Amino acid sequence: MIPTPYLLFLGDAADPLAAKVAQGIRDWRPDYAVGQLRLEGCKADLKLKDMTIDEAVAAGVKTMVVGVANRGGVISKSWLSVLSEALEAGLDLASGLHNLLRDEPELVRLAEKHGRTLHDVRVPTVKYPIANGEKRTGKRCLAVGTDCSVGKMYTALAMERAMAKQGMKATFRATGQTGILITGEGVPLDAVIADFMAGSIEWLTPDNDDDHLDIIEGQGSLFHPSFSGVTLALIHGGAPDALVLCHEPTRTHMRGLPGYSLPSLEDLHDTALAMARIVNPACRVTGISVNTAALDDDEAHTLVKDIEARMNLPTVDPYRHGAERLVEALASGRN
Amino acid sequence: MIPTPYLLFLGDAADPLAAKVAQGIRDWRPDYAVGQLRLEGCKADLKLKDMTIDEAVAAGVKTMVVGVANRGGVISKSWLSVLSEALEAGLDLASGLHNLLRDEPELVRLAEKHGRTLHDVRVPTVKYPIANGEKRTGKRCLAVGTDCSVGKMYTALAMERAMAKQGMKATFRATGQTGILITGEGVPLDAVIADFMAGSIEWLTPDNDDDHLDIIEGQGSLFHPSFSGVTLALIHGGAPDALVLCHEPTRTHMRGLPGYSLPSLEDLHDTALAMARIVNPACRVTGISVNTAALDDDEAHTLVKDIEARMNLPTVDPYRHGAERLVEALASGRN
Repeated sequence: MIPTPYLLFLGDAADPLAAKVAQGIRDWRPDYAVGQLRLEGCKADLKLKDMTIDEAVAAGVKTMVVGVANRGGVISKSWLSVLSEALEAGLDLASGLHNLLRDEPELVRLAEKHGRTLHDVRVPTVKYPIANGEKRTGKRCLAVGTDCSVGKMYTALAMERAMAKQGMKATFRATGQTGILITGEGVPLDAVIADFMAGSIEWLTPDNDDDHLDIIEGQGSLFHPSFSGVTLALIHGGAPDALVLCHEPTRTHMRGLPGYSLPSLEDLHDTALAMARIVNPACRVTGISVNTAALDDDEAHTLVKDIEARMNLPTVDPYRHGAERLVEALASGRN
Repeated sequence: MIPTPYLLFLGDAADPLAAKVAQGIRDWRPDYAVGQLRLEGCKADLKLKDMTIDEAVAAGVKTMVVGVANRGGVISKSWLSVLSEALEAGLDLASGLHNLLRDEPELVRLAEKHGRTLHDVRVPTVKYPIANGEKRTGKRCLAVGTDCSVGKMYTALAMERAMAKQGMKATFRATGQTGILITGEGVPLDAVIADFMAGSIEWLTPDNDDDHLDIIEGQGSLFHPSFSGVTLALIHGGAPDALVLCHEPTRTHMRGLPGYSLPSLEDLHDTALAMARIVNPACRVTGISVNTAALDDDEAHTLVKDIEARMNLPTVDPYRHGAERLVEALASGRN
């Protein structure tokens, strides 16, 4: 678990999109986002207080999070000097970069010297068990998608927030790097050894109160040949009681695979539900989340209405319309 | 790739079953199995020539294969002394044990000194790509099971042999430790990092002649919660043109999971075919392999006849009846 709160390192972000990890933290865990640290030429600004490392320490920060993608996949000298300074000031470092912090000898040396931890969230640190398929107490909801990167994490986080507002017990369970940095914990499922994938998700979503809900972050898609195995392990390890279908309506082919068209929501519904029921026969599909970012308000409204009528399931864009109807459907036990 | 031929090390096998890896090599790659080396108290005997390491070297052996499970999961002193001797005599070592050869400092030292290689087939040595889902030339057949350990490897090896006898071009593609030791190469799929599972199988079954068939060793089962993700990655990475359904009729629950009953062959047929067609719309189910080891001849005969009539697919126990009908159905393009 990564100590909070955070100073968000934006580096020399080439554009706002490069800092989307930091933005996720600010949006979904504002209490963790005490300040930002930007280098010269940084094109991102989260409208947080700009802080030096010493100011951050004084404000109670425990970890500096690399909230930005690095250019060219290399940790540059200017970054290294700031990362080193943070360790010397007593902060942990956390990063989801492909280049690991632990592969930088100077950072390893300083972390050891100052008793700090380098949190490379791309690398599992837990020895996960093999899944045992046993029924756990508490409830679980999983977001599944017609494709990768259609808004599964956003949907799950929005549902968690809506449930918290209503005083319901819910926990977002991160299964990817960004989600782990946002919440400070989770399973980097794409980096887990094949035999332990489902077991890592059982570990992530243990027994809980009967009225508690884990909202599990989805990964990949059953219909995406590159990552479908990861998705199925998530479905069988998570043993969800409820599925929320996630979809991006303007995509013309599966992400990165021009030869593969997207499945219909009907296909996703039937396939994901059939696979989920192997482990949890009581599983239901409770709602649909549509990412309408590419549409204007009228188009978005018409689209979700049409999908809702066609699929007979509560359908929203949680970013535009809130996640309340998804939560309501989940809680009411209908469908 | 592991250099052949082999000396099969049976150690102090507690019973014949403990030497099943060695038995698989002798049965399926008899040309590789030049001799056996047994320690005092060994209860296994493959009826191969007992050889000292020097005799094996003189007979042209290149690798000593640990063909036996170790007691208590520890590589004992008596084993270590024989393994060391093999390296000193110029042999490579190959093992599928959980305890890795490379974790024994003395073996590492001797391998370096003598320029030999320690082949721990549980650990991937290749940096596999992420799957790209692109169509490859040549044909592929995959064995899928109602459960784990129902005879998928045996079925695939028997089909390869039957095809070779008929002069057809076929290659068994190993995806597990035993298969890799038998053939000398393959992908230890259960030890591959999640993101690269499907890519490792694309790598294993590359473009080939139009009339060449890869017979891919199956792993796990879509219906086994612990390993289903591995199975789906295998289906989508392998992109099979043909599926052979494998079944063990006397099993009362999924292997290791008392709470899970087995799917019917109909369920397996429909689910595996639907998932396979996401990547290869032309995929067909061409036959059924039933492991009748627990039945007498009459029962076995009746059972396969009944299943064949019910499923309308060629059904055999390849161990009892040969794999010829499975191969014939595959080649004829029927069903």
